[in-house]
Amino acid sequence: MEKIRIIENGGVTTAKGFETAGIYCGIRKKKKDIAIIKSDNPAALAAVFTQNKTIAAPVIISKRKFANSKTCTAIVVNSGNANACTGECGMIDAERMVSATAKALNVPPNEVIIASTGVIGQFLPIENIESGIAQLATLLSPNGSDDAAEAIMTTDTFAKTIAVSFSIAGKEVTIGGIAKGSGMIEPNMATMLAFITSDANIAQPLLQKTFFSAIARSFNRISVDGDTSTNDMAVMLANGASGTPEIIAGTPEYKLFSQALLQVTTELAKMIARDGEGATKLIEISVGGAMTEDEALKVARSIGNSNLVKTAIHGEDPNWGRIIAAIGYSGVDLDPEFIELSMNTYPVLGKKYHIVIDESLVQPSLKQKDILLSVNLNRGEKAANFWTCDLTKEYININASYRS
Amino acid sequence: MEKIRIIENGGVTTAKGFETAGIYCGIRKKKKDIAIIKSDNPAALAAVFTQNKTIAAPVIISKRKFANSKTCTAIVVNSGNANACTGECGMIDAERMVSATAKALNVPPNEVIIASTGVIGQFLPIENIESGIAQLATLLSPNGSDDAAEAIMTTDTFAKTIAVSFSIAGKEVTIGGIAKGSGMIEPNMATMLAFITSDANIAQPLLQKTFFSAIARSFNRISVDGDTSTNDMAVMLANGASGTPEIIAGTPEYKLFSQALLQVTTELAKMIARDGEGATKLIEISVGGAMTEDEALKVARSIGNSNLVKTAIHGEDPNWGRIIAAIGYSGVDLDPEFIELSMNTYPVLGKKYHIVIDESLVQPSLKQKDILLSVNLNRGEKAANFWTCDLTKEYININASYRS
Repeated sequence: MEKIRIIENGGVTTAKGFETAGIYCGIRKKKKDIAIIKSDNPAALAAVFTQNKTIAAPVIISKRKFANSKTCTAIVVNSGNANACTGECGMIDAERMVSATAKALNVPPNEVIIASTGVIGQFLPIENIESGIAQLATLLSPNGSDDAAEAIMTTDTFAKTIAVSFSIAGKEVTIGGIAKGSGMIEPNMATMLAFITSDANIAQPLLQKTFFSAIARSFNRISVDGDTSTNDMAVMLANGASGTPEIIAGTPEYKLFSQALLQVTTELAKMIARDGEGATKLIEISVGGAMTEDEALKVARSIGNSNLVKTAIHGEDPNWGRIIAAIGYSGVDLDPEFIELSMNTYPVLGKKYHIVIDESLVQPSLKQKDILLSVNLNRGEKAANFWTCDLTKEYININASYRS
Repeated sequence: MEKIRIIENGGVTTAKGFETAGIYCGIRKKKKDIAIIKSDNPAALAAVFTQNKTIAAPVIISKRKFANSKTCTAIVVNSGNANACTGECGMIDAERMVSATAKALNVPPNEVIIASTGVIGQFLPIENIESGIAQLATLLSPNGSDDAAEAIMTTDTFAKTIAVSFSIAGKEVTIGGIAKGSGMIEPNMATMLAFITSDANIAQPLLQKTFFSAIARSFNRISVDGDTSTNDMAVMLANGASGTPEIIAGTPEYKLFSQALLQVTTELAKMIARDGEGATKLIEISVGGAMTEDEALKVARSIGNSNLVKTAIHGEDPNWGRIIAAIGYSGVDLDPEFIELSMNTYPVLGKKYHIVIDESLVQPSLKQKDILLSVNLNRGEKAANFWTCDLTKEYININASYRS
């Protein structure tokens, strides 16, 4: 991985040929609430959308656009209102977002992807959004990434942004992106919202395949509260502006591109988990010794979604019994007596529930903000990781009074 | 149902021919922690056990006993220690609990069922338990139900106890029971701990069938935190002491018995949900208009396990968007635009997300301690209910410091 470099302060416009801007247009209370991301030319488009059957209007519209056309020039996103469960009126508003963006940027409507995030069941203040879009068009800049990252936030406490680069044929290729959490997070084939850009030269079908695979191993492996959102969407644009030869499947260049993309999506996914509503700790769950990757993931997800494990970690209590219990109800037909468990690299539990080292030696390490739970099922060679956060009183605070 | 009477202060010894006692023996801190329930004669035994693959020693021993013999004279239960993930030593301790009970009551060991609940991964103070059992044998009484109900509590805030009666051939038949919650509650084919007694005259195979069906519609339809315990167990004894003719499948008497049993298990299950760790409200989720009962249950369970719905109800916020989102990811392939939703009988949402009455009219009713969420999927005739509680800061308090 040393060929892949992380770019300081990198974001969604670090790759060549992209501009963005984020402003306040009157949806949230005095906070930036709308952004546009624009490619200089129609970029190859990859996208995955929520699997929730309750699907928001902007997701319906963007899915339809993606089915019809595999290039994209502009993405427009608002926060503060999800435009979900809004019926006919919501669909009309979503179409108006598309039209306003197409008009303001002078691009065809089928070159526009839209996204919304926020409260469910309220109508968009569509006039505010239309003026916001017109204003954004005049502000687009290669330096706008931080504004855009801020404009897509809801209960997030920090902006989620990253970029990496690597070389192909002596030329630099960059992949960067922004994402947002931080509640209703249990992505299923997509995440809350993530926008990735690259100047890589890659054909759309291969981009979609690689993107889908990266999402499956990153955004689809995090959870804040086990609630899959109605508005999840992850979108990637690749505009070829790096000027390299085309990236072809099976080549070392393709492998490098895939690794770099997985790094970008994984880092963004971990930022979402770390910034889960009310969270104070990032919990990484690493399950090995499984018969299949799916089995490893099932076990990791079961641990990561356990309220009891998440509150124990919050209390800095090395309560391994709750982890073993969560493994037991994961749905995998395993024998728990073979399990070995470690916390922050301290071996806690050996086979047959043998206590390897005293919990009092492990406990101080749980004061860290990054917690690693490693599980060896000792029944195969496959592994999977999952990321979540601790469950705190602040989560209750945020969600018992979200709208009031 | 008017033929079934609820008995005031009824419990696990209201049925004829049962005695019980509960005392402190030195497991918990100065709280009652062990109980015996005894039938005058070997009673027909019905039982269901946790489906968690991480299964506690007492459950292994009791499952084995149940496989070998379908009658039972005594049940011994301790709280404060689950005897789970304790390996060989835990199995030996569990066997010692059986032996001590058999000896103290002068019954064969294969007439004894054992159960434990509490912290995972610690060894039982088995000498304390053995002296406790010897002492309990001298204290058994038809008036001991409240003590026994108290002795099986862990983080429960109130004892869970009920009895009902009805008549067969001019004689009174009683069914009563006790149960405990209140964390790691997402029963799967059993609940945390429930003990039901009856003086009904019914053959064991029919008792087991009826019990299994009642459990499936009561204890298996509650959730506190979505965590399935390692120690779940529900046991029923029927000793025939009512002196009625045998209850035969397909008769009106059998129907009456089944209804009364379902009432007992449902009321106990609701008490567990109401007393969920940190809970302030009981939430009943009633889903109708489904194509199958399983489909209705999937939707109800998805709503009942949503942290976002549970915190919204805690905040007395009629946030129907979170309910519709939870229905959308339930795994049922439905169209959410057909859903109708009411809260505490106020129609909130009509088809196509039509707002029927303003939320401000609904909100005051959410101050109640009993909340009813009714969902009509409008795609069939089947229905199912599910019970859960709100998610509060006190849940975090309890579980971030359970052992310290």
